[in-house]
Amino acid sequence: MDISSVLEKKKCGMKLSDEEIRFFVDGFTCGSIPDYQASAFLMAAFINGLDREETVSLTLAMRDSGDIIDLSAIKGVKVDKHSTGGVGDKTTLIAGPLAAACGVPVAKMSGRALGFTGGTIDKLESIPGFSTSMEPEEFAEQVNTIGMALTGQTGHIAPADKKLYALRDVTATVDNLSLITSSIMSKKLASGSDAIVLDVKTGSGAFMKEKEDSIKLARLMCDIGVSAGKKTMAVISSMDQPLGHNIGNSLEVTESIETLNGNGPSDLTELSLTIAGLMIYAAEKAAGYKEGYDMARKALDDGSGLEKSRSFISAQGGDPRIIEDTSLIGTAAHSYDVRADESGFVASVDGRQAGLASQHSGAGRVVKEDEIDHLAGIVLHRKTGDKVEKGDVLAQVYGNDGEKVRLAGEELIKAYTIKKEKTDPPELIQGMIGV
Amino acid sequence: MDISSVLEKKKCGMKLSDEEIRFFVDGFTCGSIPDYQASAFLMAAFINGLDREETVSLTLAMRDSGDIIDLSAIKGVKVDKHSTGGVGDKTTLIAGPLAAACGVPVAKMSGRALGFTGGTIDKLESIPGFSTSMEPEEFAEQVNTIGMALTGQTGHIAPADKKLYALRDVTATVDNLSLITSSIMSKKLASGSDAIVLDVKTGSGAFMKEKEDSIKLARLMCDIGVSAGKKTMAVISSMDQPLGHNIGNSLEVTESIETLNGNGPSDLTELSLTIAGLMIYAAEKAAGYKEGYDMARKALDDGSGLEKSRSFISAQGGDPRIIEDTSLIGTAAHSYDVRADESGFVASVDGRQAGLASQHSGAGRVVKEDEIDHLAGIVLHRKTGDKVEKGDVLAQVYGNDGEKVRLAGEELIKAYTIKKEKTDPPELIQGMIGV
Repeated sequence: MDISSVLEKKKCGMKLSDEEIRFFVDGFTCGSIPDYQASAFLMAAFINGLDREETVSLTLAMRDSGDIIDLSAIKGVKVDKHSTGGVGDKTTLIAGPLAAACGVPVAKMSGRALGFTGGTIDKLESIPGFSTSMEPEEFAEQVNTIGMALTGQTGHIAPADKKLYALRDVTATVDNLSLITSSIMSKKLASGSDAIVLDVKTGSGAFMKEKEDSIKLARLMCDIGVSAGKKTMAVISSMDQPLGHNIGNSLEVTESIETLNGNGPSDLTELSLTIAGLMIYAAEKAAGYKEGYDMARKALDDGSGLEKSRSFISAQGGDPRIIEDTSLIGTAAHSYDVRADESGFVASVDGRQAGLASQHSGAGRVVKEDEIDHLAGIVLHRKTGDKVEKGDVLAQVYGNDGEKVRLAGEELIKAYTIKKEKTDPPELIQGMIGV
Repeated sequence: MDISSVLEKKKCGMKLSDEEIRFFVDGFTCGSIPDYQASAFLMAAFINGLDREETVSLTLAMRDSGDIIDLSAIKGVKVDKHSTGGVGDKTTLIAGPLAAACGVPVAKMSGRALGFTGGTIDKLESIPGFSTSMEPEEFAEQVNTIGMALTGQTGHIAPADKKLYALRDVTATVDNLSLITSSIMSKKLASGSDAIVLDVKTGSGAFMKEKEDSIKLARLMCDIGVSAGKKTMAVISSMDQPLGHNIGNSLEVTESIETLNGNGPSDLTELSLTIAGLMIYAAEKAAGYKEGYDMARKALDDGSGLEKSRSFISAQGGDPRIIEDTSLIGTAAHSYDVRADESGFVASVDGRQAGLASQHSGAGRVVKEDEIDHLAGIVLHRKTGDKVEKGDVLAQVYGNDGEKVRLAGEELIKAYTIKKEKTDPPELIQGMIGV
């Protein structure tokens, strides 16, 4: 087999065999197929498409390009949760403890912030003392005893995806359902869980702007997951505006604790309960999704979720007193008020723009080497549908670098659109797949 | 402008502007656009196509990526001749002197052998003493006095094409009309001639297997040439079998001299007259193609073409006595007879297979560093339609390396198909464009 004949076939719109796709993935991973041939493959696959079987082949070949994590030391049905990327999305910090409180073994591997979307590890590291580095044995032991543990990605997971993604990023071949699916699912399938719960974002701040495309993506991901032998479910949720009020690491931890305390914003609470419900159902702790949701609701109402969060934070070296007093996390040195320059109703809060402002306030990295300011970020006081008067504080920016905070504030105002007529907030839960 | 947006547009099948195509070509040539983005561009352009205007833009941007040769020191209408690549094609050595004998200034820049097709420079260098290296002033002076000169490509012609072609070769993006056209025409347009005569090959041994595709290619090339202000004409000729009998450098020179002497094979004679006729018409030495053809025929019949060849060889340091005695070129040390293993009629002689056998006998380079054996090659004694008895010599292989000659002979037998029923030889001239 040679790469030219594989390229030739896909160029002509022919279907590739599993063997041909594996030949491509293996060759690209080991370097025998250079970037310029891989990018030609990606463009041909993008334009002519990969069908379901080809997408399965690509996903499994990418999964097999590196380590497959062994979580067999952890008892029960392990459920992984993945979001396609949102702004202000701290559901892992809420749904995780709720599901764990209901007996789901939550063994989560997370990443760091990338671009304008946050990373769960960066968020948790804003808790004084919290550490995500642990040995695989400690990790398994903590899930078995506490019910939840969170660590950085261990091992060498799906290196083919890492290389291919870098190439897609610079060859205009990112936004293709098959390529997105194989990228996400190859990593999830290698992460050792028994079941997968996906939160597929849709709307202006999401990768997929149209509901129809998001549903297609969710369907394909669930289909591929099931084909690979994992129970897979998805919720399609709105990312027409940021989730909750807070964006930025310590601010998101604070909002998560408030939510587990029953005082969270309704959108964040609702989505967290939905995801926890799916996790509980996927882990076979409930007979159906509805029962799972009700169990999660109970764990929220009776405080067992909050208690689970406390044990989890404490087990990973974090100061558990933040559960009672979130001010122990600290406060940034500078703040900036973003005010309405006209009266009316908030018509939209652009998630991408808000995410960028948060990143630039110091909460995210602009280049990979940047140090994160854990106290930096944004609090949105007004969201879509809210009435405002000229001069009202719409949002506040926080951070330890006054100049960055001011510039981020000027950026944040652009995220707001104010109109005379009231706009209804977007519908949060737009669909579910595999339930 | 950035390359991602250019890739995005072509990926979606949108038309690129002249500015966008120049941005791509210039960036790729200077190295600011890396191979992996260029190959994504090529694949998108291949699958979604480039329209006529885009092809013009691509061709002109590639032409402008390097030097444009100034032939203004040469008097008259300079005509360049180009073949899309055939086996046994030595028409330049025949049509050139015929056209020059009719007053056409033949200022030819040629290349070396590539793969299994020969290069005119390698052929001429088989003449003892012949040199193709000369200063631009000498070159112009020789055309002005003798009427014909031939040199290697001077200057830095269309470097964008050189880089792009190397990439197309390894990304399955060679056989696209727009990409082929821009590759050939960018170099022709930079070569300084006033008019261009194209010989577009069609059939099993050609790049374009189907007559219809060859006509499309010829039309597009003529269209692009005319758009760029050059008179451009094309003949579409059969490459269902090698042209003439001889393949290999000294063997082709010998056959050219025989042809100019009036003793050439009919197919080679006919195509040479056709090309010379087009060159004479394009150079405005005849009022129409028919008149040009008749002038070329006269130059063949009265020996003035042969005389022009003698002056040309002599002027470039070659031994002019070969015109009277081609044995002065020399004979290879070894030969091998390829015999028919059954009786019947030759149904086909595969050009590609014959070309490969010739290359492997020593006449061509397998890797760029190979030394050419100028005396190596093939003589086809039987061609399509000829009757053969079992044991007849179909062809002979020559060369100075006995082992290579034997292996090439075993390869050459595979080029022949023999059938019980007689097959008519393919029609040689299949069409003309721009006449």
